[in-house]
Amino acid sequence: MAIAPVDLAHACRLVNHGPTVLVSTRHGTRRNVMAAAWSMPVEFTPPRIAVVVDKSTFTRDLVLASGVLALNLPCRAQADLAYTVGSTSGRDGDKFDRYRIASFGGPVLGLPLVAGCVAWLECRRLPEPEAELRYDTFFCEVVSALADPEVFVRGRWHFDEHNAASHTLHHLGGGHFALPAATVQGRRLEA
Amino acid sequence: MAIAPVDLAHACRLVNHGPTVLVSTRHGTRRNVMAAAWSMPVEFTPPRIAVVVDKSTFTRDLVLASGVLALNLPCRAQADLAYTVGSTSGRDGDKFDRYRIASFGGPVLGLPLVAGCVAWLECRRLPEPEAELRYDTFFCEVVSALADPEVFVRGRWHFDEHNAASHTLHHLGGGHFALPAATVQGRRLEA
Repeated sequence: MAIAPVDLAHACRLVNHGPTVLVSTRHGTRRNVMAAAWSMPVEFTPPRIAVVVDKSTFTRDLVLASGVLALNLPCRAQADLAYTVGSTSGRDGDKFDRYRIASFGGPVLGLPLVAGCVAWLECRRLPEPEAELRYDTFFCEVVSALADPEVFVRGRWHFDEHNAASHTLHHLGGGHFALPAATVQGRRLEA
Repeated sequence: MAIAPVDLAHACRLVNHGPTVLVSTRHGTRRNVMAAAWSMPVEFTPPRIAVVVDKSTFTRDLVLASGVLALNLPCRAQADLAYTVGSTSGRDGDKFDRYRIASFGGPVLGLPLVAGCVAWLECRRLPEPEAELRYDTFFCEVVSALADPEVFVRGRWHFDEHNAASHTLHHLGGGHFALPAATVQGRRLEA
């Protein structure tokens, strides 16, 4: 598993194309990981991201208690893992143990990061109680970013047929994910 | 160009997989269209979406003045259009005219919808001045949804090699877009 640091100036590029993320959390001895299809950057510098965490989730309890969370980007090889942690609750037992999910400690916050993903962002919650209450939307600031250098280099994703197992997942519904298996370059139209 | 209504219960599925959208707006005789890579659903029912609209944009003036906006989902065949409206300002002249962008009126709000897209959502702004000010994040509620029935049927996207020109765009940076050219189905892991 290759892991390289990503300049914080490029951190939001990791989620710019709309991938599903796994939100991992820890508070004291309790930890959890859930899937979240709904996240987006809101600012490049400083790198800030919004992510939707429903009121019913154990993850929400841990984010509110700890003030931190990590976003892990699962890849094609982890579609089953993403679907599984998105359809089970950490209140029923530690998902890392139950599904034998390997993890490693994040470089700044020590959060549990999911092994085998293609990018990881440790974040601090920016408390916005109204947005959290009304829209389940948590704003956070990225404090560390890592990525697999085989697919993310010099601030850009490089998806092609040779790294298909490492393509990000984009949730269509019901555990069905689209993959960025092709790309296109837009050109400026003439006025 | 095929267009079919989408049940509002399925509206958020249109943007669930993280596509770049074109935000179209109108206030009185002024109208505009810009690209936004940063949007996400925040609730399925009622269908609500968050979208980032920078303070510098003409679009923001029109949204604040009118209280409404439309999200149009451009497809592969429109990569040049998406890049172009994302790198020019409506303050320099009407982009619809300048780039000969065909449009039609939205069914509920009459907003200018971009012809040739694969989905369209008319939305009302839910005023959240603090999120707008601090994070450029606008929350809105979907009041009408349309899609091309060749790629979105019964609440689901159907992307395959036969409809490649109609695949949604997912911005990687610099006008380079990923396309959902392949899919994978996640299965539940055993505990």
